[in-house]
Amino acid sequence: MPSNGHKQLKIAVIGGGSTYTPELIEGFLARRDELPVGEVWLMDLPEAEEKLRIVAGLAERMSARCGRPFAVIQTTDRRAALDGADFVITQMRVGQLAARIRDERIPLSHGVIGQETTGPGGFANALRTIPVVLAICRDLAELAPEAWLINFANPSGLVTEAVTRYTKVKVVGLCNVPLNMQAGLAKAFGVDPAEIYVEFVGCNHLVWANRVFCRGVEVTERAIELTAEDPALNMKNIPHRTWSRDFLLSLGAIPCGYHRYYYLTKEILAELLEAEAAGRPTRGEVVREVEAELLRLYQDPGLDHKPEALAKRGGALYSEAAVRLISSLHHDRRDIQCVDTTNRGALADLLPEAVVEVNCVITAQGPQPIAVGHLRPQLRGLLQQVKAYEELTVEAAVTGDRGLALQALAAHPLVPSISVARALLADLLGANRDFLPQFKI
Amino acid sequence: MPSNGHKQLKIAVIGGGSTYTPELIEGFLARRDELPVGEVWLMDLPEAEEKLRIVAGLAERMSARCGRPFAVIQTTDRRAALDGADFVITQMRVGQLAARIRDERIPLSHGVIGQETTGPGGFANALRTIPVVLAICRDLAELAPEAWLINFANPSGLVTEAVTRYTKVKVVGLCNVPLNMQAGLAKAFGVDPAEIYVEFVGCNHLVWANRVFCRGVEVTERAIELTAEDPALNMKNIPHRTWSRDFLLSLGAIPCGYHRYYYLTKEILAELLEAEAAGRPTRGEVVREVEAELLRLYQDPGLDHKPEALAKRGGALYSEAAVRLISSLHHDRRDIQCVDTTNRGALADLLPEAVVEVNCVITAQGPQPIAVGHLRPQLRGLLQQVKAYEELTVEAAVTGDRGLALQALAAHPLVPSISVARALLADLLGANRDFLPQFKI
Amino acid sequence: MPSNGHKQLKIAVIGGGSTYTPELIEGFLARRDELPVGEVWLMDLPEAEEKLRIVAGLAERMSARCGRPFAVIQTTDRRAALDGADFVITQMRVGQLAARIRDERIPLSHGVIGQETTGPGGFANALRTIPVVLAICRDLAELAPEAWLINFANPSGLVTEAVTRYTKVKVVGLCNVPLNMQAGLAKAFGVDPAEIYVEFVGCNHLVWANRVFCRGVEVTERAIELTAEDPALNMKNIPHRTWSRDFLLSLGAIPCGYHRYYYLTKEILAELLEAEAAGRPTRGEVVREVEAELLRLYQDPGLDHKPEALAKRGGALYSEAAVRLISSLHHDRRDIQCVDTTNRGALADLLPEAVVEVNCVITAQGPQPIAVGHLRPQLRGLLQQVKAYEELTVEAAVTGDRGLALQALAAHPLVPSISVARALLADLLGANRDFLPQFKI
Amino acid sequence: MPSNGHKQLKIAVIGGGSTYTPELIEGFLARRDELPVGEVWLMDLPEAEEKLRIVAGLAERMSARCGRPFAVIQTTDRRAALDGADFVITQMRVGQLAARIRDERIPLSHGVIGQETTGPGGFANALRTIPVVLAICRDLAELAPEAWLINFANPSGLVTEAVTRYTKVKVVGLCNVPLNMQAGLAKAFGVDPAEIYVEFVGCNHLVWANRVFCRGVEVTERAIELTAEDPALNMKNIPHRTWSRDFLLSLGAIPCGYHRYYYLTKEILAELLEAEAAGRPTRGEVVREVEAELLRLYQDPGLDHKPEALAKRGGALYSEAAVRLISSLHHDRRDIQCVDTTNRGALADLLPEAVVEVNCVITAQGPQPIAVGHLRPQLRGLLQQVKAYEELTVEAAVTGDRGLALQALAAHPLVPSISVARALLADLLGANRDFLPQFKI
Repeated sequence: MPSNGHKQLKIAVIGGGSTYTPELIEGFLARRDELPVGEVWLMDLPEAEEKLRIVAGLAERMSARCGRPFAVIQTTDRRAALDGADFVITQMRVGQLAARIRDERIPLSHGVIGQETTGPGGFANALRTIPVVLAICRDLAELAPEAWLINFANPSGLVTEAVTRYTKVKVVGLCNVPLNMQAGLAKAFGVDPAEIYVEFVGCNHLVWANRVFCRGVEVTERAIELTAEDPALNMKNIPHRTWSRDFLLSLGAIPCGYHRYYYLTKEILAELLEAEAAGRPTRGEVVREVEAELLRLYQDPGLDHKPEALAKRGGALYSEAAVRLISSLHHDRRDIQCVDTTNRGALADLLPEAVVEVNCVITAQGPQPIAVGHLRPQLRGLLQQVKAYEELTVEAAVTGDRGLALQALAAHPLVPSISVARALLADLLGANRDFLPQFKI
Repeated sequence: MPSNGHKQLKIAVIGGGSTYTPELIEGFLARRDELPVGEVWLMDLPEAEEKLRIVAGLAERMSARCGRPFAVIQTTDRRAALDGADFVITQMRVGQLAARIRDERIPLSHGVIGQETTGPGGFANALRTIPVVLAICRDLAELAPEAWLINFANPSGLVTEAVTRYTKVKVVGLCNVPLNMQAGLAKAFGVDPAEIYVEFVGCNHLVWANRVFCRGVEVTERAIELTAEDPALNMKNIPHRTWSRDFLLSLGAIPCGYHRYYYLTKEILAELLEAEAAGRPTRGEVVREVEAELLRLYQDPGLDHKPEALAKRGGALYSEAAVRLISSLHHDRRDIQCVDTTNRGALADLLPEAVVEVNCVITAQGPQPIAVGHLRPQLRGLLQQVKAYEELTVEAAVTGDRGLALQALAAHPLVPSISVARALLADLLGANRDFLPQFKI
Repeated sequence: MPSNGHKQLKIAVIGGGSTYTPELIEGFLARRDELPVGEVWLMDLPEAEEKLRIVAGLAERMSARCGRPFAVIQTTDRRAALDGADFVITQMRVGQLAARIRDERIPLSHGVIGQETTGPGGFANALRTIPVVLAICRDLAELAPEAWLINFANPSGLVTEAVTRYTKVKVVGLCNVPLNMQAGLAKAFGVDPAEIYVEFVGCNHLVWANRVFCRGVEVTERAIELTAEDPALNMKNIPHRTWSRDFLLSLGAIPCGYHRYYYLTKEILAELLEAEAAGRPTRGEVVREVEAELLRLYQDPGLDHKPEALAKRGGALYSEAAVRLISSLHHDRRDIQCVDTTNRGALADLLPEAVVEVNCVITAQGPQPIAVGHLRPQLRGLLQQVKAYEELTVEAAVTGDRGLALQALAAHPLVPSISVARALLADLLGANRDFLPQFKI
Repeated sequence: MPSNGHKQLKIAVIGGGSTYTPELIEGFLARRDELPVGEVWLMDLPEAEEKLRIVAGLAERMSARCGRPFAVIQTTDRRAALDGADFVITQMRVGQLAARIRDERIPLSHGVIGQETTGPGGFANALRTIPVVLAICRDLAELAPEAWLINFANPSGLVTEAVTRYTKVKVVGLCNVPLNMQAGLAKAFGVDPAEIYVEFVGCNHLVWANRVFCRGVEVTERAIELTAEDPALNMKNIPHRTWSRDFLLSLGAIPCGYHRYYYLTKEILAELLEAEAAGRPTRGEVVREVEAELLRLYQDPGLDHKPEALAKRGGALYSEAAVRLISSLHHDRRDIQCVDTTNRGALADLLPEAVVEVNCVITAQGPQPIAVGHLRPQLRGLLQQVKAYEELTVEAAVTGDRGLALQALAAHPLVPSISVARALLADLLGANRDFLPQFKI
């Protein structure tokens, strides 16, 4: 008889030296009765070894404080981490924060919003990250063919799509945006998050709450009103602006925070340019400070729990998203979670093979997307355009074809002309030269 | 704040005089802690009043035995039953068993399998039943616009599709076949039914177990082997024959019992013709005997529970299917059940507006189908052909267009030529004249 | 036996006072042996009667010079013009050139390119024009139900889509852009236009040459090279800029002139703003001068042919497009022309009911689009986004729903934020108040 | 500058010893002014060398009589025939007429209609023919990569689909059925065939006239009436039966002759069984006699034209179909012909990669299908089911997978049960053992 129940799980975290890791550790500890984690391998690059040592130390103390339900192993040997893993979490940033800051700065120097996930900054990040994740997949095929790859590496949707198109690895892309939207709506309605059901449609960092239900009753219009009045959707790393009521009502859906870059391009660009002129730091530079502070805190040998300050980092519900997904995959729980997976017709306006972010039933065989059908034109056009950009970016990242890279940037709604696209591409490829062996520059 | 929790529900059962009703009553009683049913209205036609009296009497005694959690009301006033109902269950047979027996006998006289649900007999049944259900829907729009219509009236998929195409009533079609297949597989694997997950694809009485999982692990091939060896899928009302192992393995899926009519047409037809020649009764005639016996039992004033003999009737898990669905709709439970609902792209090989029988997440807003994508050609062609027949039948039933009715029968895989279709149609329309006012015969 | 051959055709030209009309008259004269036109009715509004008189006078002299093969009738009675017509050509501009100039100026005052067909200016034009064309369609249903409506009224694709969605009138949308692209490519290759075959894909004023063939051999790459070197595609009313070679090669297709607004948004906007600052006229203002000059010329009683100066107006091949189409519809010629018609699956990335601009076989039953399948992502995303904008605009124009109008503008790639969309919408609705009775402003 | 115009073409005819060949030669001669054929290579197997000699002799005399515009070369060396060919016509029958007669006889012995193209007989033929055509394609890739393969080898649609799915060869499937339907309708309307336009939809030997136009006017209903009264569609090799008027009118389309096997299965089966019982020959046996007679005629050294008797063979318009297609491909004529080619969305109810038989614009790049959209359910279901059978058959023929072969036969509408399918498959595989190396029997 098949059974999954009693095995001790091996978790591998690629980019384990991230300051987010304590969040994840806390998640595994919180669910230790439900999820039999035996080992957590924290893997990072040799050049991040010092950081990894600090983070792993805290992780170890956190586990110890709870009676050490699982071992914490630190390593710079990626193959050792992957070997026999049950779940692999990719959360690394190729090029570290320095690359992110370039992803924000370079586009701005061309009069373009950078935005490190959904913007041209995310484009550069995708070019750097996709080859690394595909290399991990090649290792997985050999060392842990049955493992689930839980991808958090940004841009999460793009990276996930690359894995689905070019490998046979079992992959789910994940993001904390949907969970945060649900939590925000629950707060606005004054109920428990479990009492709110949101029909999510879209792709990563371009996801809408298409319909909202509270205790089983559709409340979409009321949710829109509440959102317009008091934006529950603001996130740390997104310049906050309130949606206007008339726009939201005629949209008929609630955008995620990242939609602001598309809906308020002009205002956000002006704000960013002004900040730059004033010498204010980018979000990446702020994060660099936060990280330094966090690492100082983590070094405290007396610290054996996730510090409050981590909240500033912007990853609310990150561990909840990850551990809940792993648990449902492991236990074949068949509950509904919003994740990034292959469309298969769930959104009729995109190709079946595109990766989308929709509600899925999470089974031991992976996410099964719930069919939504066609979207209203208000949502459809933007989603299709961004998805075309994503498809071009994935192809460019895998092939190193400069023409495709140009087409990807030219297709991006934030890039105002192909001349800008060309100049911006040249700069991004130049600045990321060391991370882009696939491009013959 | 929206809330569904504390209201006492009114259930209306159209065709309440059916001998199946005690099954349903038992289901409501078994879930009385979870589902706050306040009234069960049993409605039937004046000509069935005696039968209704007997059945309602037993239902009343069953409720009384459990402390009378709900009232049982019998009526021949359909509007009174529907008025303010929360859930309406349609389980009537238009024309009673006499019509069913004609549905079986008339095709046979043309050398064609009748089959009262998926065969040409079901075609005649659809022509009779669809106008009645649409009339109920018109009443519902006025008397209980928020009610859910749970359709069991056969042919369930066709009737459900007519409701979705021609009304705005909230409807779910239901059948006990998927639950029985799941139960049969559970028995074969020696596990609890909850530990078996079946990916169902198809339409009503033409549903396949496309993939089977046991405790989260795919076991489709083993399930096929077990099915081939010891058919767990046999049903009372279907001549039983074992599928052959080579056929099932190359099919790659497990058919439902009713598939036999398509896969073993020649053998079943020969068997039925032989039975007729030998003067043996049809299934409808057997059921008539069983029903008479059941009604005799139900009259016993000492009987206050569902009698064992009801099992012979063939409706195993009927109450389970109905009450579980109602409970999930009421409580927005979001569990997965296989029901008949609008496709919306879940099966990419059928039109989005077709009614299909697939796994759905059951929410307070109704079933949300889980996307499957394209089917292999082994399943695809037969499903598409039968669905085209169904679409033609729905249109013929609503419009009374004799040409469409001829096309429907001609498109049916069991009808061996258009000459046969024409003669058979003439006989079916003639014999059902009193129930088919939409046809100008 | 059906026959179309010997009837004298009645042509009705709505907006017959346009200075383009001599172009059309010339076309009918040139094909007089092939197309049996009996009457050309030139209809215009009472306020344009003077202009109509001048234009009709020239038309009459042109016909007379060729032996008066058809009568020219001028009228301000629209119903009289439509009554019994075989072909109705709509070429009017609702609000005249004054409205066009506002369509160009108002967006610019918000820092947005106006562009009177494919830009936000065209959006305002669509709001004005669609109700008028739908009113014509209501008349046609009564007065000439078999007539073909040949729509040139801009934005041609949007107007055509409105007619297909909301009426049963037989309509074809038309534009001279594809013919000009073909002619330009023929010139570049040094061959006759008939020797060039272009696979057009897209929608009106957003059409690409997806593949190019010369004498039956695919020459797409060479055509791209030639286009990059020496743009044959420039049009009078579009600021000219040369596409870059690397962009075109990686695009893999040749854009039309109007694509510049999307591909070179930043540069064209800067140019337009600079022109405005310098007090230079908009294209509409230039056209106003050209028109005044043309009308002066047309008044010369000695003039009996199309004057050379009309070429400045920018409508090269306008009559060729119109008369060739009418002739093929009339004679069931089944040749291939690129027109605007219902998709029906020809472009798999758009809804079947969307109006697209693709190669069609022109039969007496109308255009039959040639199937292309899916487009590459380079073309797909932009086309889908613009089509979503168009769908929203059509709905807004028909319903007068201000929310939909806001969504349409917000979805337009040239509008940089919803704040801008809102302010721009307010101005456009205000300035066009007299032409927008459907909006409760 | 590209040019196709002056080259002398090499035509290779695989199965050149067929008695049909003079038909083809006559076609090339009739179009010799338009189509510059330089050489016609007639290739056949060594065991058919005598037949080839006779046929090639006649072909040579026919050419000589017209001034020898092209040379006729006979060969048993397939690679020599293919080397440098411009057009390759495949018209061979693998296993000769003896195999065809088995294809007819064996199914009948199982109580099933054989039908050598669209029935289970055609299934056996596909298993034999597909591997041979794929071998030819491998040679072509090497010896004449730019050649067009014009496939007449039956079952033509299945063979063409195999080539499109498994090779890169440029292929068009062809059949004379559409041309004959058009000719029959022209005769019924008393007009020239060129004045009739038929919208064909379906797949090979399952093609409907979906709409009919006469001189540009839709006359579908009248065409149906005429067909019902006096079937113009009868073919030599199909037992003739008149369609009934009521069936055709509610079908709304005109079936091809081969539809009889599906629409009148019972009657045709009875007729065939009766003929067998009476010792009457099958169609294949009749054809064997006709062929022997033809070969006797062909041997006459005085014969230098196509003999009248060839008409009995049943291939009316065969040469017209082939030569007209070749001429349009060669000259990039862009006229409309009904051929077998990849769907690409033209029929929305089938997969884009399925081979369909629809109207196409014939260009030098091959046929471009005209989009039709969705079909009515009357046509849709049967077409989808037969197409699923075809897909399974192609896969079985290529892989030699016996399970797929069983599924193909079980999916065939003429096979009344899987038990029959299994027994029939065993016999067909056994009897064709020598031609089916791909099956491990």
